[in-house]
This record gives sequence, C-alpha cells and structure tokens, in this order.
Amino acid sequence: MKITVLTLFPEFFDSFTNTSIIKRAIDNKHVDFSSVNFRDYTLDKHNNVDDTVCGGGAGMLLTCQPIVDAIKANRQKDTKVIMMTPQGAPLNQQKVHELAQSDDVIVLCGHYEGFDERIRSYVDEEISIGDYVLTGGETAAVVLCDAMIRLHDGVITTTSHEDDSYENGLLEYPQYTRPIEFEGQKVPDILLSGHHENIRKWRLKESIRKTYLRRPDLLDKKELNKEESKLLSEVIEEEKMK
Amino acid sequence: MKITVLTLFPEFFDSFTNTSIIKRAIDNKHVDFSSVNFRDYTLDKHNNVDDTVCGGGAGMLLTCQPIVDAIKANRQKDTKVIMMTPQGAPLNQQKVHELAQSDDVIVLCGHYEGFDERIRSYVDEEISIGDYVLTGGETAAVVLCDAMIRLHDGVITTTSHEDDSYENGLLEYPQYTRPIEFEGQKVPDILLSGHHENIRKWRLKESIRKTYLRRPDLLDKKELNKEESKLLSEVIEEEKMK
Repeated sequence: MKITVLTLFPEFFDSFTNTSIIKRAIDNKHVDFSSVNFRDYTLDKHNNVDDTVCGGGAGMLLTCQPIVDAIKANRQKDTKVIMMTPQGAPLNQQKVHELAQSDDVIVLCGHYEGFDERIRSYVDEEISIGDYVLTGGETAAVVLCDAMIRLHDGVITTTSHEDDSYENGLLEYPQYTRPIEFEGQKVPDILLSGHHENIRKWRLKESIRKTYLRRPDLLDKKELNKEESKLLSEVIEEEKMK
Repeated sequence: MKITVLTLFPEFFDSFTNTSIIKRAIDNKHVDFSSVNFRDYTLDKHNNVDDTVCGGGAGMLLTCQPIVDAIKANRQKDTKVIMMTPQGAPLNQQKVHELAQSDDVIVLCGHYEGFDERIRSYVDEEISIGDYVLTGGETAAVVLCDAMIRLHDGVITTTSHEDDSYENGLLEYPQYTRPIEFEGQKVPDILLSGHHENIRKWRLKESIRKTYLRRPDLLDKKELNKEESKLLSEVIEEEKMK
C-alpha cells in the first residue's frame, strides 16, 4: 500500500513512521509512506498557501491552487484521495477495512480554518475520526494511517486481530497476566483452570457484559447468534441483581 | 494545564510537541507537557513490562506493577488519570471541554494486547477516540491532548472556536477564499455582496444543509431555535426538489 500525506507539516509524521509496529511495516515494505508539503506547489510569489475568508470571518483558509496542484501531481489513475475533515463520514472499523483495500491513497490534512470549499470536488472521500475539534488534520491522518497499515498482511499476526474491540462488534473481554494476585485483586479462577471451553465461554460472556454496560449502542447494531443471545440474557439478569 | 503521558514510546510525542500550535502552546507555557516511559518503573530484572495472557491467547499484556507504580509516582492529589482504550467512553467535544477543565492529567497509553484488567481500578476515566483499532494508545493520546490543549485560553484566538464543526452542534458552513473563480467553480455571489446579515443567514442555512445531508444524527441531538427550525424546513424542501 502506498500512502502519500499532503500537509503543511510533513515533519509531523516523523515520530509516527519511526516508532514500533509502523516503523517495522515501513522497513519491511508493507507500506510505502511519504509526507509531502503542499507549500512546494504554490505559485504564489510570497509562497503563501492561505488567504482570508470571502464574506468575512476569523482565520485563514487553504487556497485551491497549491492543494489541487499537489493532488494532481501525486495522483495516479487509481489513487483514492481522502480528505481529513470534521465534516467527513465518521471513521469506524468497517470503513478502515474498506479504505485499506486501496493500493494507493492520498491523505489530505487541513490546517488553519480549513479548506476552500471547492477543493472538496477533487476528493474521493471525506473522513472524520470523531466528533471533536483538532488543531489540524495531521493528527487525524496519523490515526487513519495507523488503523489502515495494521490491517495489512504481515504487519500484525492474524490471530491478534480477531478478538480486538470492534472487530466482532463487541468490546474486548477482561484480560489478566501474572501475578495471580496484585494489591488484593486476583485473576479469576476460571482463567487458571486450563479448561479451554469454559474459558472461551467466560470470555464471550464478559465481552458481552462489558459491551452491555459501556456501549449498549454496539449491541443494538450487532446480530447476536444463539449462544450470544443466551449469554446476554444471563448478563442482563445478573446485572439487575447487583 | 499539566499533562503527563505514560507510554512505552515517549519519543512518539516529539513531533506532536514540536509542531505549529501545540509547540507554541508549550513554549508560551499554556501547557506543561511531558512523556514518561513506564518501563523506567519496572522492578523486573529483565526490564520487562509485559507478560503472557492468563488462560491462553495471542500477544502480550502490560503488567500491573510498572504501570501502577508509574501512575503513583506521577499522580498528585487532584490528578485525573485517563486511560486511552477502545473500551472507554467515546470522546466528543463536550467530553473534551470537561477533561480540559483539569489542571493536571495523566494519560495512559496501552500497547501490545492492552492492559491487565486490574490496572483499570487505578484510573479515573477510560476514553476511546473512536470505534476503530489502533496499534497503540499513543496515537489516541495525541488526539486527546491536541483537542484539550487548543481549548486553553491564549492557544487559539477565541473567535476561531465559535464556528468550528461540533461546537454549535452543526457542521461548518462552506468557506471560500480567492480567486473568485477556480477551474470553473465560483464563490457564491452572496459572500461577495458585503451584506453582513444576508451572509450570516446564508452561512447558518448552509451549515444546517451540510449537517442534514451528512450527519442527520447531529440534528437529532440539537435543540434548534426558531430561526434554525425555519431554515431546516427550507433545506428539506429544497433538497426534495433536487
């Protein structure tokens, strides 16, 4: 997968590309990542990429010419151009899977007050990482790139994905490691029993419990199978008793 | 505001703290930011901070001792301890405002398969930045810190906040800058009219239109005043005609 980030702050991505799993994914050529300054494409004699807002208002907007020229210069026939913007479609794990299918993406980061509206017509997808306001699109781009890169074959061992929160529509079950007791809190006995089927069932039930207590909206969206439905009923009964 | 990030990758935050608005906020002492490696707190003779999962399963979990000791060493009486985790409460702009009230926060970043469940009992808030999976909590922590820091007095001029997407429960209206025409697309005449009241009304209506078309869920949550209700009705009529 090739990712080209267009930004006013290409150096913002240095830490991201030099840390842990993402660094390894780049070193092992699972992903070809570059960040490009769209200021390099401005034709303005003062090197400006922003201008005041038509009709009045605070702040500066990114102008069409440098951004559109940067898109055109870095776009191939099958490139998907993604704009990070609070006005975009909310990102979720399903959307990440969909976008990660692309072999070649451009990720556009806004700054200041945002983009001239006309730039949107050169974009294939507008994405928002959440309902909050950030100083710029760079932070959002890091989130999207991280989420996409980790799905690629070889970046993370496949068995690690299956139980992740959101992947099966449930929050992850509680996990424990040694010591068996820490400051008075113990690992549940069942996890030490060695009985695989009981452990599987306990984990599924606790996964359903956590989702029921914290994110019931996720349960509304999920089609439960027979076992999951039964466990949910048990959880609801047990929580009522508490 | 004091922010202490506890992480396995303190250097991940270098780019964040050295770029643009956040760099200025730190230089101007609006925020006191540090990132601390919780590996510095491990008592393990091999310097480990992770161990295998009780009951079996892929990957490694962060163990209680180094994380809890790092929290205790960096926590004051009024410190709010926030854990970044997909199991947390979904972050939104209201939550950002609430968390940004704290004078002193610790932000805990997971990695590998996550935290030993017992660590959660040392935490005040669990926060998720969205329904997607990341390689680690560092990316999520950058998002939360960025969103909190920009709200502090003096970091961004106040007039810039008011029209941001989400701040008033609506997506932002379309904005334009020069040139008046770019590759056949023109700035709407009304924005060039100089008629402030008409411009205000147009912007409010287009803000409502964008929200209606892209994020009707936000309109469901918002209490519309009389003018907004009227404009929404007009928008619905106009969009039906299209």
